[in-house]
Amino acid sequence: MDFTPAGELQNRISGFQAMLGEKQIDGALIIQAADLFYFSGTAQNGHLYIPAQGQPVLMVRKSFSRACEESALEDIVLLTSIKKLPELIAEAGLSVPRVIGLEMDVLPANTYLFYGNIFKDTKTVDISPLIRQARQVKSPYEITLLRESGRKMAQVFREVPSMIREGMSEVELAAKIEGLARSMGHVGYISMRAFNQAVFGHLLSGWSGAVPSAFDGATGGIGLTPFFPQGCSLKTIGRNESILVDYVGLWDGYITDQTRFFSIGPLPANLMNAFETALRIQDAMIERLKPGVNGSEIHELALDMAAEAGLADNFMGFGADRARFVGHGVGLELDELPVLAKGLDVQMQTGMVFALEPKFIFPGEGAVGIENTFVLTEKGAEKITTAPDELIII
Amino acid sequence: MDFTPAGELQNRISGFQAMLGEKQIDGALIIQAADLFYFSGTAQNGHLYIPAQGQPVLMVRKSFSRACEESALEDIVLLTSIKKLPELIAEAGLSVPRVIGLEMDVLPANTYLFYGNIFKDTKTVDISPLIRQARQVKSPYEITLLRESGRKMAQVFREVPSMIREGMSEVELAAKIEGLARSMGHVGYISMRAFNQAVFGHLLSGWSGAVPSAFDGATGGIGLTPFFPQGCSLKTIGRNESILVDYVGLWDGYITDQTRFFSIGPLPANLMNAFETALRIQDAMIERLKPGVNGSEIHELALDMAAEAGLADNFMGFGADRARFVGHGVGLELDELPVLAKGLDVQMQTGMVFALEPKFIFPGEGAVGIENTFVLTEKGAEKITTAPDELIII
Repeated sequence: MDFTPAGELQNRISGFQAMLGEKQIDGALIIQAADLFYFSGTAQNGHLYIPAQGQPVLMVRKSFSRACEESALEDIVLLTSIKKLPELIAEAGLSVPRVIGLEMDVLPANTYLFYGNIFKDTKTVDISPLIRQARQVKSPYEITLLRESGRKMAQVFREVPSMIREGMSEVELAAKIEGLARSMGHVGYISMRAFNQAVFGHLLSGWSGAVPSAFDGATGGIGLTPFFPQGCSLKTIGRNESILVDYVGLWDGYITDQTRFFSIGPLPANLMNAFETALRIQDAMIERLKPGVNGSEIHELALDMAAEAGLADNFMGFGADRARFVGHGVGLELDELPVLAKGLDVQMQTGMVFALEPKFIFPGEGAVGIENTFVLTEKGAEKITTAPDELIII
Repeated sequence: MDFTPAGELQNRISGFQAMLGEKQIDGALIIQAADLFYFSGTAQNGHLYIPAQGQPVLMVRKSFSRACEESALEDIVLLTSIKKLPELIAEAGLSVPRVIGLEMDVLPANTYLFYGNIFKDTKTVDISPLIRQARQVKSPYEITLLRESGRKMAQVFREVPSMIREGMSEVELAAKIEGLARSMGHVGYISMRAFNQAVFGHLLSGWSGAVPSAFDGATGGIGLTPFFPQGCSLKTIGRNESILVDYVGLWDGYITDQTRFFSIGPLPANLMNAFETALRIQDAMIERLKPGVNGSEIHELALDMAAEAGLADNFMGFGADRARFVGHGVGLELDELPVLAKGLDVQMQTGMVFALEPKFIFPGEGAVGIENTFVLTEKGAEKITTAPDELIII
């Protein structure tokens, strides 16, 4: 297991401190696992205080010994009680903040109110927009890990055609794919920031590809229980159905997202036509994606092309159950910035890493489309999920 | 997929309404997936308003059509904007509450503040203790599903000995076990209520069994990345090591938790002795567990027996990294009530379902112990994870 290098952490922290200074926030208290890992290199149970100026202090409940081993930060102390946070900040030689930033998009209400009581004369503000903004541009170190995640995912997908048998259930095929990824060291647990959102990959076939769900994406799926109504099910896989394999690569903490389609025998013409439209939309989006472009333009371009192909009704969902974006950032979490959605202003920057997923949904028939993860460089969008895009007919 | 019967939902709701009435709370707004599913039978993206008196109204964003199919509740309406919540409650013929209960243990701070703005002249209170209290006693319907989960888990564990090979990595073995469970319809995603807590099962061998982590349990494990520093790793499995297989069964939404131990060749005498002590502690806890008993007594009994065996230092962890409980409720979530911990008053009731997990940790050597899930009946604690308890030596 490689630990995040000290220089990498230092860069992240000083960039974030500049943001804090600009907003006149005295310091940020970081608790959520992904944010904590990003800034400290450890995801042990701890609180990281980053002052606008000076060295951060990491206060750890469990496991202190592992946090010391994993984190390259200098100031790591044992936290025996949450009430001692102001005391430990003072002991680290830092002044207790007048304005403190908290991760108010994820912090439970009770915890938030409790911190308000601990830091009595301190004003609390939401620090999550700044953290998400900081995290949306990846460093060369992170991009190396993301590329490796994409390569491993391609290795897994290469084996998928040999796993597919007519009459097997969706969950049987899912078990094989997940088992292979896992045996290669896939972490198995996908982090999402949004409340109530979770996913373990979607493996859907034929009409189940068009079954909507609570999941905020183009596809849902029947699922195995109404308590988790998405993803693979006991439905068997038949001939001439689009088999959607949408999995999240997760090695060394970093996520790549990709979708490929397979079928036993050819697909119906309308699905094949929509699949090819999705590939053309992907090409056009790549063509347009340069640093400085507004992300909302990319979604509009996709919407326009879907409409031109007569497929507006089927794009990214159907009826009321529709995803309102065509792309989303990935990194430590599956739902990072930028979000590429119509009306959502976001200037694309080099180092952003995001999935683009033009998909079409046909109720009663299934889903088709494509999804890849890209890194934005000076030259444009470079695909890092390297499996071939083609529909594979078995 | 079976849907929760209307009568079952009605019982849950009327029991909860009595609690609301007693606490003079006018209504509860339920959003979190497990709570929502418990009271409505659907986990689609929705808001359930349960008034202290009268019929609840389920307001759904996505997928409305699936929520209508899955939930046996009568009043289900489309929610186009969160701001319309008070309007939809009024349209359902209910009065807008003066005191409203929210799930403040899990609701993100921003969401909580947003609801405070929507319900302007309404006082908000934390409803999560009442919900957790309601959910801790399982109905016969739920116990049937829990028993089935335990039976399927036993089926999976029966195959484990044939999967173990000297020199394979922990993650390779984990992939086989998880793959089998998944192919049998295991849901794959384990819900936990606590912030930042997640688990996918622990498969640990030898010294990795004694590596602590942020996870709030007796064991941690090396893990595959410092971002998720727990569970299986690339460490290879050797001879005379305790192989810990701690997995969460999850079928039809309901969780059973069990741990078994395996080894290639015999275990060192100190580990074998601790394993047998754990079995004796389990027996004694079962003997003591009757309706009306205080849960804290059970933990104290376990602590006393560990101390008598000269193993106090190794019980449920080591040094500062220690779990402070010996048992925890399971159901839709892995971390339900009751928690069996010293000093924590809880009267054991028939219908409670919980895991008991006396475990011993030996730094540098490994973990041994036992974990089973029980349902409390009039007669006592009945084991529903039916795999044999014995250490299996291969």
